[in-house]
Amino acid sequence: MTSPVRVPPELVKRRLHDLAQHGKHGETGVWRPVYSEAWATAQDLVAAWLVEAGLDVRRDAVGNVWGRLEGSAGGPAIVTGSHIDSQLPGGRFDGALGIIGAVVAVATLRERCGRPRRTLEVVSFCEEEASRFPTASFWGSRAVIGGIGPDEAAAMRDLDGRGMIEAMAAVGLDAARIPEARRDKGDVDAFVELHIEQGPRLEAGGEPVGVVTAITGYRQYLVELRGRSTHAGAFPMAGRRDPMAGAAEIISGVIGNALRLGPPAVTTVGRLLIEPNARAVVPARVSFTIDARHPVEAGRGALLSAHEATINEVAARRSLDLTVRIDSDRAPCPCDQSLVATLAKAAAAVGGRPVPNLASGAVHDAQQMATLCPVAMLFVRSRDGLSHTPDEFSSLEDCVAGIETLATALHQLAY
Amino acid sequence: MTSPVRVPPELVKRRLHDLAQHGKHGETGVWRPVYSEAWATAQDLVAAWLVEAGLDVRRDAVGNVWGRLEGSAGGPAIVTGSHIDSQLPGGRFDGALGIIGAVVAVATLRERCGRPRRTLEVVSFCEEEASRFPTASFWGSRAVIGGIGPDEAAAMRDLDGRGMIEAMAAVGLDAARIPEARRDKGDVDAFVELHIEQGPRLEAGGEPVGVVTAITGYRQYLVELRGRSTHAGAFPMAGRRDPMAGAAEIISGVIGNALRLGPPAVTTVGRLLIEPNARAVVPARVSFTIDARHPVEAGRGALLSAHEATINEVAARRSLDLTVRIDSDRAPCPCDQSLVATLAKAAAAVGGRPVPNLASGAVHDAQQMATLCPVAMLFVRSRDGLSHTPDEFSSLEDCVAGIETLATALHQLAY
Repeated sequence: MTSPVRVPPELVKRRLHDLAQHGKHGETGVWRPVYSEAWATAQDLVAAWLVEAGLDVRRDAVGNVWGRLEGSAGGPAIVTGSHIDSQLPGGRFDGALGIIGAVVAVATLRERCGRPRRTLEVVSFCEEEASRFPTASFWGSRAVIGGIGPDEAAAMRDLDGRGMIEAMAAVGLDAARIPEARRDKGDVDAFVELHIEQGPRLEAGGEPVGVVTAITGYRQYLVELRGRSTHAGAFPMAGRRDPMAGAAEIISGVIGNALRLGPPAVTTVGRLLIEPNARAVVPARVSFTIDARHPVEAGRGALLSAHEATINEVAARRSLDLTVRIDSDRAPCPCDQSLVATLAKAAAAVGGRPVPNLASGAVHDAQQMATLCPVAMLFVRSRDGLSHTPDEFSSLEDCVAGIETLATALHQLAY
Repeated sequence: MTSPVRVPPELVKRRLHDLAQHGKHGETGVWRPVYSEAWATAQDLVAAWLVEAGLDVRRDAVGNVWGRLEGSAGGPAIVTGSHIDSQLPGGRFDGALGIIGAVVAVATLRERCGRPRRTLEVVSFCEEEASRFPTASFWGSRAVIGGIGPDEAAAMRDLDGRGMIEAMAAVGLDAARIPEARRDKGDVDAFVELHIEQGPRLEAGGEPVGVVTAITGYRQYLVELRGRSTHAGAFPMAGRRDPMAGAAEIISGVIGNALRLGPPAVTTVGRLLIEPNARAVVPARVSFTIDARHPVEAGRGALLSAHEATINEVAARRSLDLTVRIDSDRAPCPCDQSLVATLAKAAAAVGGRPVPNLASGAVHDAQQMATLCPVAMLFVRSRDGLSHTPDEFSSLEDCVAGIETLATALHQLAY
């Protein structure tokens, strides 16, 4: 029988509060883009916490902060953590909870149980959201797996047109040294990430914590429809080649495909541009994104096939010129079954009853780390299922339950 | 039997070419916003043509250019003309053809037939398109009917933020004097406007010229749907309040309503904005325009009722917050039956066979003038039904046929 590791709620509360002061935005929000002043002082704070906890602290070539508690048996490390950057603005839990949870869990274990048998590491990834550099998703974890291309930094521009190389230099980092952040497969044995759910399922089920079985696969399309721009009054309906009519039909179609396939399939059209975007002109061109996700590869395949059939059928029937670009494409990432079992046991020990499994519809650093080692994730209930907004909220009780589950699981794995 | 009045094609060709040099844009386009340098020299050219034709020329308080050929019997004038401004860019026919046609027709009549019994006037309206000042539609003809509000000029800003008062001053006009441009009901007896069709119906029917029986009525809506912005991956389909899904359904719905009601009903969604307009975020808000037109009041009523039912039903079913703003609303404008008959006879005399009647789906200065006097319009075939683009084109033969029809009708009315 697994015994729960308890952590002090007051400490969790204080750390959530203190970290949220770095980039504080309004009452509850955070504005903490990578390599900003707020980001730099936030990473300093995490480093100070790790030193206070008695860990060996280092910063790697992209600015990830690491704390290491060397195990007596040596061997590859068990790593836990999440990302320090936020949406613009975001809330105080997305990413931050996983870092605070990691620091508090490892510090508590060291204090209560001393040196572990296996090495434990805490990581605060420098960037996951791509909120400042739109093409820099998972910048921190990609550096760790060696997934940043040699010319990527030089090509990247932030929302104000400033370059990544310059942004890194401003916080004392040299982009030429990015490859040094890479860790080897033999060097890391597991990655466990605590994160808020960002969806409403735990709340709907009345559950504070859930164990993630897989992280979603996805495909993101950019669909462009081109027709003939004509006068909104003088040109009859029958002869029109109206790309807005086609876009509306495709949008309804792909949303309908996801509904028909059923949960956990999701599809979102979040971005749309019209040209010329004038009230009394049938548009010449409408382009829009389709974000389609499924955590099981067979389901993802069925969803994407349905979407592509819808897109092609509508464009052909309406005589619209069509371009479909695939902007990103990733197979689902299953979590490691043994780690999932350990987390489930730990959660049951902490809460006194079994907790649900669920798939993650959002993407996470754990997905990147999966190319290096087995991964798993824990979710904490999000109020109203919200994230990426100052309104995101998880109660202290739920955060503590998540951190205690993490600590209990790390105890099982490392001691 | 009406005898046709012929006009010299070479003169028409030269004038179309010469006017298009003022604001020339690329090979075939025109960029001639109201009160610009190009606009001022274009109005100077029209004034010079009118002087050359032996008319009394004056400019009114908003910059409309008028030419007057006093009739021997006195009494109210028969006015013909159109607008000198263009879309940005527009083509060389929209508006311009009606001015050139008026100048050539009246000059030809004076040369061939001398002084008319009834007074003839030519007008070059300063602005119809609202291409520079978005709220200044029909600026020239509205001034003539006394339809410009006392505070309108002071509130108007152009696309660069420059004020209407300042723009008028730059070409020597005093906005305080706008009311002086007004003409009285007893002063004008008829307004006839020659214009390109801007649609494909004459081309489809193999007809160079058509007589307009009514100018469309319309209503322009701004629909705003507000839902709940959630994560594109983590939030299941079932609980979403997605305003993009609602917008797509409404757009398909209103286009379907227009198709079901049949010609001449038309409906266009030409403008749409999403917030936050991000790929991986279910939008919080989608707003879009609906432009709905019908030239018969009963038809317009049926179309608008169907649209409003669709909007309300979709928003309610999807639990979306809804705001519907009516930005403009105008009943159809029937053309004067006696003028229509005169134009039809003239067209048949010119072309040797009857020409079709059709409704105008676009709006025109004639619609404003209808509050002052009986109005009618002639349409000339547009290649591919295009307008508001440098690609708009009407052949010289078709332009000449339109001008000869206008001249023949004016001869009937004034001599």
